[in-house]
Amino acid sequence: MFGAVIHAPGDVRYVERPDPSILEPTDAVVRTVAACVCGSDLWRYRGISAVPKPTPIGHEFCGVVEEIGDDVTTVEVGEFVVGGFNPADNTCSVCRKGAQANCQHGAHYDGAQADRIRIPWADGTLIATPSLPTDDLIPSILALSDVMCTGWHAAVSAGVGPGTSVAVVGDGAVGLCAVLASVQLGAETVIAMSRHEDRQQVAREFGATHIIAVRDEAGIAAVQELTDGIGADCVLECVGTEQARLQAVGCVRSGGNIGLVGVPHGELPVNDLFWRNVGIKGGPAHCRAYLPQLLDLVLARKINPGRVFDLELPLSEIAEAYAAMDERRAIKSLVRP
Amino acid sequence: MFGAVIHAPGDVRYVERPDPSILEPTDAVVRTVAACVCGSDLWRYRGISAVPKPTPIGHEFCGVVEEIGDDVTTVEVGEFVVGGFNPADNTCSVCRKGAQANCQHGAHYDGAQADRIRIPWADGTLIATPSLPTDDLIPSILALSDVMCTGWHAAVSAGVGPGTSVAVVGDGAVGLCAVLASVQLGAETVIAMSRHEDRQQVAREFGATHIIAVRDEAGIAAVQELTDGIGADCVLECVGTEQARLQAVGCVRSGGNIGLVGVPHGELPVNDLFWRNVGIKGGPAHCRAYLPQLLDLVLARKINPGRVFDLELPLSEIAEAYAAMDERRAIKSLVRP
Repeated sequence: MFGAVIHAPGDVRYVERPDPSILEPTDAVVRTVAACVCGSDLWRYRGISAVPKPTPIGHEFCGVVEEIGDDVTTVEVGEFVVGGFNPADNTCSVCRKGAQANCQHGAHYDGAQADRIRIPWADGTLIATPSLPTDDLIPSILALSDVMCTGWHAAVSAGVGPGTSVAVVGDGAVGLCAVLASVQLGAETVIAMSRHEDRQQVAREFGATHIIAVRDEAGIAAVQELTDGIGADCVLECVGTEQARLQAVGCVRSGGNIGLVGVPHGELPVNDLFWRNVGIKGGPAHCRAYLPQLLDLVLARKINPGRVFDLELPLSEIAEAYAAMDERRAIKSLVRP
Repeated sequence: MFGAVIHAPGDVRYVERPDPSILEPTDAVVRTVAACVCGSDLWRYRGISAVPKPTPIGHEFCGVVEEIGDDVTTVEVGEFVVGGFNPADNTCSVCRKGAQANCQHGAHYDGAQADRIRIPWADGTLIATPSLPTDDLIPSILALSDVMCTGWHAAVSAGVGPGTSVAVVGDGAVGLCAVLASVQLGAETVIAMSRHEDRQQVAREFGATHIIAVRDEAGIAAVQELTDGIGADCVLECVGTEQARLQAVGCVRSGGNIGLVGVPHGELPVNDLFWRNVGIKGGPAHCRAYLPQLLDLVLARKINPGRVFDLELPLSEIAEAYAAMDERRAIKSLVRP
């Protein structure tokens, strides 16, 4: 089969790779219908994270089950499935608490931007659709493998609920999904912070009630003006830079919460958070906890997170899929074998 | 009148001070029935915080209203009242969100270890009892002015609820009240971490299901053993030192929450918290939010947080009240004019 391998920063290649196979009785092998490039894949592409050797890459996919191990009972060959970016057994003590991202037996994919993918813990990881979905639903189902679950996780971690005011820092695919999640969770005010017209448009379609196109002090002032002068109940930090985190701290009201899904670089202003009673929670998304509900919403066409894909290419053009996101010509690239 | 004035580290004096009076129409003046020494008062006593000049000290009290300003409507002269350590108007945008510790017009007491106290924002701050309480209830009512609200705040901030497992780091008055709060809020497992027999005894009376008398790695291992090997759902950090915070981080399960009421010294391990999906929230307690419920519980004799006082002295012996706490001869000192 063929798949993407990152060789060095800026160098992702479409190359022949060994076909995956069942290694454990809890595995499945999935034939990829669609995969995509993650903002976190760009860390290595941009040289922020190391690439010590050529490595298969990608962790978002949906597809059709081709083979299952002897212990797999919840998905069958031929079924259409989606799985979160972080395989989990969904049975350990941590999973049973709803923290599947931190599964005691958590595993990784060996590169999901590929024709076929080995899925560890297939029962714990995969959710099957009741029937083969129509093609127009593929992008939204694919979005559930990471960005939509991650945006949802930001909102859940910050306690977004009916009547709350929410500010979303970051207008990438995750930030946009966090807007969609906040609307679904009943937020009354949903402020998207974005300086890019195309992303503002998606945020509006997802239900943002306000767009703020400035940042830093001006952005904080604008959020406060929309929130009775005190800041938002919940701020969803979907970037991970120091600047974004300080923006989040500035935009949240005293006693409010920051949902953090951008991988943190730099320190937290712990004393400021303490004296203002601001909570902070987040991390990798508990995909398996959210997938059943989110898949239902997608199949019922109540949410369309696939709207974040604005570039679709054959898998063979994976290099361009990366370049377009790196150069911000695309919000998020979808590839099909 | 007479009251306590801190002159320098280790030097708290009982001195004559001017009688307080109504300065704003929203003020009241309360004749003190009981006051007490706070762990945070010891920062200045121990030279951790500066004492730039002689300063009236103390912020916990209960007493009888002697005088009210023209705008005060919810308490009357002669009523018995308790107030939180952080006066709040209870009407501003932040207070209406339930974050009264961060009131936009927050104020301070000018030394509550005194015969009389000026209360800013009397309507927002004070709660009156339906009738004069019997003397044996005074310590528990007094405990509501800080430590019981603060312990409750730790538990609420960490999301303690029915069926949760809780570990409490810190066996001072606040930590003990956090045990009591967790039990009241329905926690199934409440682990008190204490190496002192007298404090362990109070923790048991307050409903702790387990006592752990070791700390650091051994303490973390003991908590994990009691929590299915994964750590507690909620950890209440009631100390504020770096060691205590690392203990808390080690004792909490992935996806769990740390309630923080010890004033933070040092940094947070933000990357560890993120990857483990551990939430952290806390700060000064929203006393006014909790006081009505907690006062009801005390008056109904369902909780007795006054149990944390193990030394009672006349206000004139305030110097000894401090020394006993500083030297750990007392958990908490109560003084009466």
